[in-house]
Amino acid sequence: MTLYLDDLRVRHLGECRYDSPLSEMLTTKQTSPHYVAEGDRVLLEDTVSMLAGHDVPPEQVPSFEAAGPRKKIYFDPSSVTAGILTCGGLCPGLNNVIRGLVQELAVHYKVKRILGFRNGLRGLTSEHRDDTVELTPEHVRDIHNAGGTILGSSRGNQDPDEMVDSLVEHGVDVLFVIGGDGGMRAATCLSNAIEARGLDIAVIGVPKTIDNDLPFTDQSFGFQSAFASAMDFISSVSVEAAASPNGVGLVKLMGRHSGFIAAYAALAANGADIVLIPEIPFALDGPEGLLAYVEQHVRKKGYVVIVLAEGAGQDLLEDADLSHRNGKATDASGNVKLGKIDDLLKERITDHLTAVGLAPTMRYIDPSYAIRSVVANAYDSVYCLRLAHAAAHAAMAGRTEVAVARWRRRFVHVPLSLMTSRRNQVDPDGDLWMSVLETTCQPAEFGVQREGEKVPSGFC
Amino acid sequence: MTLYLDDLRVRHLGECRYDSPLSEMLTTKQTSPHYVAEGDRVLLEDTVSMLAGHDVPPEQVPSFEAAGPRKKIYFDPSSVTAGILTCGGLCPGLNNVIRGLVQELAVHYKVKRILGFRNGLRGLTSEHRDDTVELTPEHVRDIHNAGGTILGSSRGNQDPDEMVDSLVEHGVDVLFVIGGDGGMRAATCLSNAIEARGLDIAVIGVPKTIDNDLPFTDQSFGFQSAFASAMDFISSVSVEAAASPNGVGLVKLMGRHSGFIAAYAALAANGADIVLIPEIPFALDGPEGLLAYVEQHVRKKGYVVIVLAEGAGQDLLEDADLSHRNGKATDASGNVKLGKIDDLLKERITDHLTAVGLAPTMRYIDPSYAIRSVVANAYDSVYCLRLAHAAAHAAMAGRTEVAVARWRRRFVHVPLSLMTSRRNQVDPDGDLWMSVLETTCQPAEFGVQREGEKVPSGFC
Amino acid sequence: MTLYLDDLRVRHLGECRYDSPLSEMLTTKQTSPHYVAEGDRVLLEDTVSMLAGHDVPPEQVPSFEAAGPRKKIYFDPSSVTAGILTCGGLCPGLNNVIRGLVQELAVHYKVKRILGFRNGLRGLTSEHRDDTVELTPEHVRDIHNAGGTILGSSRGNQDPDEMVDSLVEHGVDVLFVIGGDGGMRAATCLSNAIEARGLDIAVIGVPKTIDNDLPFTDQSFGFQSAFASAMDFISSVSVEAAASPNGVGLVKLMGRHSGFIAAYAALAANGADIVLIPEIPFALDGPEGLLAYVEQHVRKKGYVVIVLAEGAGQDLLEDADLSHRNGKATDASGNVKLGKIDDLLKERITDHLTAVGLAPTMRYIDPSYAIRSVVANAYDSVYCLRLAHAAAHAAMAGRTEVAVARWRRRFVHVPLSLMTSRRNQVDPDGDLWMSVLETTCQPAEFGVQREGEKVPSGFC
Amino acid sequence: MTLYLDDLRVRHLGECRYDSPLSEMLTTKQTSPHYVAEGDRVLLEDTVSMLAGHDVPPEQVPSFEAAGPRKKIYFDPSSVTAGILTCGGLCPGLNNVIRGLVQELAVHYKVKRILGFRNGLRGLTSEHRDDTVELTPEHVRDIHNAGGTILGSSRGNQDPDEMVDSLVEHGVDVLFVIGGDGGMRAATCLSNAIEARGLDIAVIGVPKTIDNDLPFTDQSFGFQSAFASAMDFISSVSVEAAASPNGVGLVKLMGRHSGFIAAYAALAANGADIVLIPEIPFALDGPEGLLAYVEQHVRKKGYVVIVLAEGAGQDLLEDADLSHRNGKATDASGNVKLGKIDDLLKERITDHLTAVGLAPTMRYIDPSYAIRSVVANAYDSVYCLRLAHAAAHAAMAGRTEVAVARWRRRFVHVPLSLMTSRRNQVDPDGDLWMSVLETTCQPAEFGVQREGEKVPSGFC
Repeated sequence: MTLYLDDLRVRHLGECRYDSPLSEMLTTKQTSPHYVAEGDRVLLEDTVSMLAGHDVPPEQVPSFEAAGPRKKIYFDPSSVTAGILTCGGLCPGLNNVIRGLVQELAVHYKVKRILGFRNGLRGLTSEHRDDTVELTPEHVRDIHNAGGTILGSSRGNQDPDEMVDSLVEHGVDVLFVIGGDGGMRAATCLSNAIEARGLDIAVIGVPKTIDNDLPFTDQSFGFQSAFASAMDFISSVSVEAAASPNGVGLVKLMGRHSGFIAAYAALAANGADIVLIPEIPFALDGPEGLLAYVEQHVRKKGYVVIVLAEGAGQDLLEDADLSHRNGKATDASGNVKLGKIDDLLKERITDHLTAVGLAPTMRYIDPSYAIRSVVANAYDSVYCLRLAHAAAHAAMAGRTEVAVARWRRRFVHVPLSLMTSRRNQVDPDGDLWMSVLETTCQPAEFGVQREGEKVPSGFC
Repeated sequence: MTLYLDDLRVRHLGECRYDSPLSEMLTTKQTSPHYVAEGDRVLLEDTVSMLAGHDVPPEQVPSFEAAGPRKKIYFDPSSVTAGILTCGGLCPGLNNVIRGLVQELAVHYKVKRILGFRNGLRGLTSEHRDDTVELTPEHVRDIHNAGGTILGSSRGNQDPDEMVDSLVEHGVDVLFVIGGDGGMRAATCLSNAIEARGLDIAVIGVPKTIDNDLPFTDQSFGFQSAFASAMDFISSVSVEAAASPNGVGLVKLMGRHSGFIAAYAALAANGADIVLIPEIPFALDGPEGLLAYVEQHVRKKGYVVIVLAEGAGQDLLEDADLSHRNGKATDASGNVKLGKIDDLLKERITDHLTAVGLAPTMRYIDPSYAIRSVVANAYDSVYCLRLAHAAAHAAMAGRTEVAVARWRRRFVHVPLSLMTSRRNQVDPDGDLWMSVLETTCQPAEFGVQREGEKVPSGFC
Repeated sequence: MTLYLDDLRVRHLGECRYDSPLSEMLTTKQTSPHYVAEGDRVLLEDTVSMLAGHDVPPEQVPSFEAAGPRKKIYFDPSSVTAGILTCGGLCPGLNNVIRGLVQELAVHYKVKRILGFRNGLRGLTSEHRDDTVELTPEHVRDIHNAGGTILGSSRGNQDPDEMVDSLVEHGVDVLFVIGGDGGMRAATCLSNAIEARGLDIAVIGVPKTIDNDLPFTDQSFGFQSAFASAMDFISSVSVEAAASPNGVGLVKLMGRHSGFIAAYAALAANGADIVLIPEIPFALDGPEGLLAYVEQHVRKKGYVVIVLAEGAGQDLLEDADLSHRNGKATDASGNVKLGKIDDLLKERITDHLTAVGLAPTMRYIDPSYAIRSVVANAYDSVYCLRLAHAAAHAAMAGRTEVAVARWRRRFVHVPLSLMTSRRNQVDPDGDLWMSVLETTCQPAEFGVQREGEKVPSGFC
Repeated sequence: MTLYLDDLRVRHLGECRYDSPLSEMLTTKQTSPHYVAEGDRVLLEDTVSMLAGHDVPPEQVPSFEAAGPRKKIYFDPSSVTAGILTCGGLCPGLNNVIRGLVQELAVHYKVKRILGFRNGLRGLTSEHRDDTVELTPEHVRDIHNAGGTILGSSRGNQDPDEMVDSLVEHGVDVLFVIGGDGGMRAATCLSNAIEARGLDIAVIGVPKTIDNDLPFTDQSFGFQSAFASAMDFISSVSVEAAASPNGVGLVKLMGRHSGFIAAYAALAANGADIVLIPEIPFALDGPEGLLAYVEQHVRKKGYVVIVLAEGAGQDLLEDADLSHRNGKATDASGNVKLGKIDDLLKERITDHLTAVGLAPTMRYIDPSYAIRSVVANAYDSVYCLRLAHAAAHAAMAGRTEVAVARWRRRFVHVPLSLMTSRRNQVDPDGDLWMSVLETTCQPAEFGVQREGEKVPSGFC
């Protein structure tokens, strides 16, 4: 799906008439490797071949609006009421973003009233709209030292009109929605409902995805903290498996549709023998299948360590008609509930190894809540802070229906709808996955051939 | 200084005639957001204004050769001898890079002989050339669990011809120099000496700089681990200063010419009240000077926390004719030895606060060795591994006098000489420094005006 | 069960005739707060009332032989072969103990041959007795940097005579069994079989129990590392529960018969609202039951955090005739397999809260493998090292059928059979549990009265 | 110095007339391995020889009053005002103790007014007595997540009468002094001044010493956290030294009079080659001196790692008439300022190695502030909490001029004056130091003979 410049344009609420309280700091700034000037834009693509594909003048090449403070802003800060909410699953850094927003708005823009809505979009329902908390710099000073979110979170959609009513009732001018694809979709709906009622409320999305599966974002905030924590659990099962006769270490990591956490954690830990991700189908049976490889590994090395993204191998559950595992229901956010691939693997591996006389010691762990709840690491702390600053600037400049993101190390504005238009996934032909294969020495595929391809047979 | 396409071209030793052992894995690969195809190139610049500045067809726009494996390679892997050395100060990740190189070369390219030279370039002198150690995958399997470098390191230049003699004596075909700007300069000299003698030896640089001051590199490996560790020491002096009457916490961090560690650590820790970096001069005295601000801070908040990059305020030492501190000597790598700005600050702050009746409790720490020696964190572990893979690919494909680097999240080849042609520094007008100012609330400058500029007077 | 001096006497293989290589270091040593002299003994009991209960002269008061080096030893070190094995579940510090043994024996006693048997007692079967590895100081130098055990482990008993055969075949003079109550029992059997055959082999037990449930030991090695790790998981579910509507955080910790890990981790974390341990029965239903308290907590605070020792509430499984959960089988070590109290709690809590209109968000984690596999912390590292030194000294001095232990901070020799004669448990009337109650503010009991006792009704 | 039972008796303010709010919890409690009953006492000594030295009936054997809650208490909790202060250098766990005190007093004893005095004893001067903060459970809920002390600290004595005036003015009934030997001495003076004025104020000491040098305490709170942190810095300089030609790693640790931190950290880290502590004098010169050993080490292993307690080798500074280093001044707490043994060592080692052709790379770090300011680890968190509970119980029961301490794992009451009557030091003949020698393989002494002793010459 090709994107054109027009696809990347951002909605403005209107002309910027107010001097920014920050304008004094902005006078000398111009585009450099460390800054993009107000009028400049950031290229979407970054290779010669991609550039050559667009036979247009530079200013027509697909590009994003640069994020950052503007000299003139849309809202009069002294009369602005801001709202903040967090929705979806936990992710390291949520409190850092909340804190960064509050500090930037209150200290630098002198915004006097900042409201936190409780438990995600639920906090905008009529039932809960009065649970709001007032947020001040003093209140949020140390919240980044704890994981989770002080505002609470939840899944699930709410009626857009009811939510707009809440915003109106509280006099909210700018709303920050920190959430995943469910949250970004809801923010888009909300923004449409606001527009339909002709209201002057900016809706800014701060994309949150521990799986790193949202597009137009280098790495989503919290991702590095998450895979660092995941790495430790790979080490745990490696230690357990290595110390047990025919040990099988199995760790299930987050990754519904994208195996980034599994891939990165496996590269960082380097104790993983097999990485299974949603992007790469695998077969269990047959001479090239996973079970045969597991067996071979246990025979040779004495044990095996498997890193499993939760969304991997979902087709196997269907094939096996394992109706109790093959979830077709959806959760409150509308996500299809995943079948339990971990249960299938434990069963099949145990059966297989037992059958060949290698009765295994199974060491399984599902550390998801322990990973999601960690405090943001140093890198993510800085990232969240700067992302929050960018979001505050976007709102004050009257952008709306827009997400702030980091694109090839520049902060940019991305139209909200684009954030849910595609998924960021591990490219089976990309260099990340190739490094995983080189490091684990697992075969490129387990008995499942992509068309016209020859499967290498374990190349270490 | 403008760069043209020709400046970014990379030297090849010659035509690639051998099939790569990895070629099978490369058949389906093409440029995508996660991969750059063999023939494609990565743009140097990334904004519309920068692109518009080059009035040339896309294929003439300045761009880097993409790193990565090639289907055809220059060396016959079965007969290759590789050499590896690490030089300059310690940096998290050195062992990870060594390990990644050895694993890629030995396991995937089937290189049979890999030598480690001891203690940097010294290991290539006639005196020490026989101290080499043989490196195997088994040998390096767990070395990434320790900081430092198993090969040892040192500073200082050596005679290029003597070093070439060592390479010839050991039959080295490809040499990997993991080092800082001193190391990159030495590698360039060495490469020239090799060329002058018409030898067929590839020299690949893996740029190492804990200060993040080398150009054409998103963030140098180890940098994130370093600033994460630095963050903890800011917390330490914050805790100490906050618990002491008129506490002054002062932490000296690495950063000879570039204040990245100080800036990032301060953003991550968020306990810093003042950040001083080499890029931003500051005055001590006067109503807008540092001392007045420190005094004001102690009066108001009870204590103050200062993060000092070691290269900050060097001009103050000259001005004060503090000959015992003002180092004009150079170290073995040719770096000018820095004067002791920390001593000056401790003295002046103590004197000033005492004089105004706020006799301070000084809490000073210089944690440099504790930071340099940490184990690479999860992110840097992955980064080092992938960088090492890229370096191995470059060497086998016959590139020489080239550094591997990560440019806007793509691995690329950069001519060695370019790596020392400029310095990466914190842009006083960029958004990183702006976030520091917004977070610390310190004034943009302490009593030193840049021409034509109005100094804001502490904007929190 | 009262213990008399005779119960605490230790078996000697015979008279000590050889000068210890360490004797020179021992000349000046005499009993002090930091040392117990060779001929002296350590009191079993430590209060006036306990002492008064023994109407005997001091030298008849129950006391342990002090551990430590002897000037004269039983074995001629130059001809000793030592054997080491680890058995039972993983516990932090196993590698530290192995390493301490090897270093002490090889470096200080100059023992030339040290064998590691693989995978616990299995390594002494005829089938596996040749899987032994030779252990040297060089080999074990860095093994304490990894969790687990380099020797592998397993559960299950083996035929004592077959095991003695293996010892004889390898010429083992001293055997170190690092294991739990299963291991201590097996070592006792083995020792008896050795004695029955009139062999001159010393068997030394190093008691290992992550649950801290072995007697005559201040805190078992690895326990502090374990509860420190457990603490982090309590924090994880606290963060998750606090961020979810009607959040229920539930963490299942180790503790088959003794709730020490749960109690200490809950005190350290201080986010726990309820701690359930095997020593204190609890009822689910009724106005004083757990479910009512959970409901009350969620209503008041919005969420609840429960720390569950795996062995808690086993009677509830029987009561409920939950045959699928109520395990009556035994594992390979002869331990009764526990029923799944966690499943029962999840079900009953979810049902109860849903029924009262507080449909919960359940955040459950079972981190056992992640806890067991951690690296020993600083304290345990020192403890393991000193314990290993004591074990080596005991063996060289010809003690046998003895465990080395730390009793009120003195290292002592405990007859092996005593180690399995009773269990160390949390005293419901002791000050540890009282501190737990004071900290969580949970009621002393949930609807289960001990005879003649009045149950306080939640005293915060 | 022999202690008799009378030396261990504790002062009571008077008869306990009030029912304790906790009395219901105490009905069933009796002496067990996990509890000491109210009327029982804890033996001072623990070996048969020590016991035999006292030819008296059990109830006359020297013993401590057990700490813990009493059924009857002295103060009427509803009318009590409590005061808390922290003094001396920072130590991990200060906030944990403050928090434990506040929670126990407020939640369980229902004490309504708890005051925190600012910056140690200074907070009791007339100038600062009104800087007090009111402490509530809500206020202190999360303070244990930060190092340092929320109350601030300082060194230095104050006039006892002025301090009593402050207590009277605020109506303080019980005062908790968390401090080191300076603090314990001051608390004793204060208590005497209170008694002289016939006031009814309890003074309870909570002994704090990061050096672990106070007597009658197993290990002082924070000590384990401190040496765990110290261990990391030994690793840092080990990594640095190992990677440098002729590397000398030197880390200066806390330990004015007692080398516990150095000893434990060196055992835990096991990278240390030489440990120097105040208890063991050493010579620099001569064939058995430190310099010769350092040289030998660098020749053999390539580098050396030295762990230096700050109070080691003070006599060398006197000998050398190094007046600029040989501090004879005292600090505000009356402690003699130590001379700079680190500077002397750096100079002498550099000179010596350079002279013998091994010009060293010196890697020195003084991490003191980074160690003192760490957050208490899991063990210390539990310890501090229980110690705080014991202190609260002691105060409410009307004990005064008493310190709470942990003696062979029992919490006891120790008369305040005893806490400063002697020092806890590493016993050169004890098993801790012997383990250090066995682990580092350093000689028992460097060229300094204790009378009548033969010095072994490096026994590895």
